[in-house]
Amino acid sequence: MPNPTAAMIVIGDEILSGRTRDSNMNYLARELTKAGIDLREARMVSDDREAIIAAIKALSDEVDHVFTSGGIGPTHDDITADCVAEAFGVGIDVRDDARALLAAHYERQGSEFNEARQRMARIPDTATLIDNPVSIAPGFRIGNVHVMAGVPSVFEAMVTSVLPTLTGGAPLLSQTLRIERGEGEIAGPLRQLAEAFPELSIGSYPYQKNGVFGANIVIRGQDGVQVDAAMSRLAELFPA
Amino acid sequence: MPNPTAAMIVIGDEILSGRTRDSNMNYLARELTKAGIDLREARMVSDDREAIIAAIKALSDEVDHVFTSGGIGPTHDDITADCVAEAFGVGIDVRDDARALLAAHYERQGSEFNEARQRMARIPDTATLIDNPVSIAPGFRIGNVHVMAGVPSVFEAMVTSVLPTLTGGAPLLSQTLRIERGEGEIAGPLRQLAEAFPELSIGSYPYQKNGVFGANIVIRGQDGVQVDAAMSRLAELFPA
Repeated sequence: MPNPTAAMIVIGDEILSGRTRDSNMNYLARELTKAGIDLREARMVSDDREAIIAAIKALSDEVDHVFTSGGIGPTHDDITADCVAEAFGVGIDVRDDARALLAAHYERQGSEFNEARQRMARIPDTATLIDNPVSIAPGFRIGNVHVMAGVPSVFEAMVTSVLPTLTGGAPLLSQTLRIERGEGEIAGPLRQLAEAFPELSIGSYPYQKNGVFGANIVIRGQDGVQVDAAMSRLAELFPA
Repeated sequence: MPNPTAAMIVIGDEILSGRTRDSNMNYLARELTKAGIDLREARMVSDDREAIIAAIKALSDEVDHVFTSGGIGPTHDDITADCVAEAFGVGIDVRDDARALLAAHYERQGSEFNEARQRMARIPDTATLIDNPVSIAPGFRIGNVHVMAGVPSVFEAMVTSVLPTLTGGAPLLSQTLRIERGEGEIAGPLRQLAEAFPELSIGSYPYQKNGVFGANIVIRGQDGVQVDAAMSRLAELFPA
C-alpha cells in the first residue's frame, strides 16, 4: 500500500522577504519521513488572503494531510484562521472551548485577556483544537488541514501532539554513501544501479567543499533487504 | 508603479525528506528584496516530472520572473531541463554552445567528457545560457523562467549573473523594533498604527526566548519618510 501523502503551507511575508529563515518545513519533513508519510510539496506564501485560500484549496484536494505554519497569533496580520474558514466555506468566531483555555491561562499569569488575545480563540466552525503546551493558544484541525503556529517551539510541540493521531505508512529506510568524485564520473554506473532496483529511489546530491566536488548518494526504500543489496553494489562500484 | 513579482521552485526529494535544509530560497529572497522584486511564493517539489511541470506552468503564468534551483546535474535524477522544455512545448537536445563550454572545461581538467557530462549540455530550444563561473555547466533562461543549479555556491553565482539583467523596482525599505512584550499586549495599538499607515506593511513576528515572549515589529514600505514616521510613532507607543 502506498504511504499517506502530505503537503505543507508556510505562511508569512517575513519568510518571502528573506528576513526570517524558515525551520518548520525541515522539522516537519523529518518527522513525516520517520512516520512513513510522504511530504509531496511545501509552499511558502505571503500574508495575503487570496494566496492563502488558494493554497489551502489546492493542496487539501491533492494530498491526505495538509499542515500550515504561521498567522494564528493576536495581531492584525494574523489572518490564517479566517482564510481556512473561508476555504472550507464555514463560519468563524470566538469559540467557548478555546476562550476557556486562554481565559484560564491569562488569569494564572495575571495578564488581561484583552480583545487582541481573544482573537486567538477564533476557531472555524466544526474544527477540533490542537493542543499547545507551550503558550496555550490552540491550533486546530478542520477536514484534512492542520493549522499550527509559526514560532518554532510552538509549531514543534503541535506537530508532536498531532502526529500520533495520524496513520503512518512503512517508514522510509535510507542509506547514504559519500563519494569524493564529481557526479559526471559516477552518473553512468548510478543510472544502471537505479535501473536494477526499480523499487528504490536512488538520489545523487552533489556538494562542493574546499574546491573539491563530490556527491552523497542516498538509497531509499521501504524494503530493508533491497536497500542493503543496492548499497553493497554501490560500495563495490565506488570503493573508498 | 508596483514592483515586478517573482516566484521560486526548489526541486529535490532531499529537501522534502528533510535530509537537506534548503538555503537557496532564503538567499534568493534577500537578493530579490534588495533589488525591489517581490517574491510572492516559493514551492518545494520532489523530483517528479508531473509536479515540476505543473509548478513551472502555474507560476510562470502568475508572476514576472520564476527561478528554479536543482535537478540540472548529470545524474539520472536530474530531470529539470527536460521538464522545463516540456512545460514550454519546445524540444531539447545537447546544444553546441553548452557542449563547447563543457568540452573545453573537461579538457583543461584532463577529465573525460563522457555521456553523463554531456547530459549537462542538454538545453531547451530557444533558451539562452546562464553563466556558471563555479563549475561551468550552465543554467538557462527560457521565457520568464531562470533554471539554476541546486548546489548553493553555484546557485548563488548564477543569481549574481542573472539579477543585473532584470529590471527591479523601488527597493523595499524596512525598520525593525524588538519589543519584549507578548503580542497580545501590543496587538491593539499595532492594528491602529497599521490603519494609520495604509501604504506600509507592518508585520509582527513573535519569538520565544528563555521562556520570555516578545515580538519583532517590522515596518516595510517604499517611502522612507513614511517608514520613519511610523517607526517614530511605534517607538513612542512602546518605549524600551
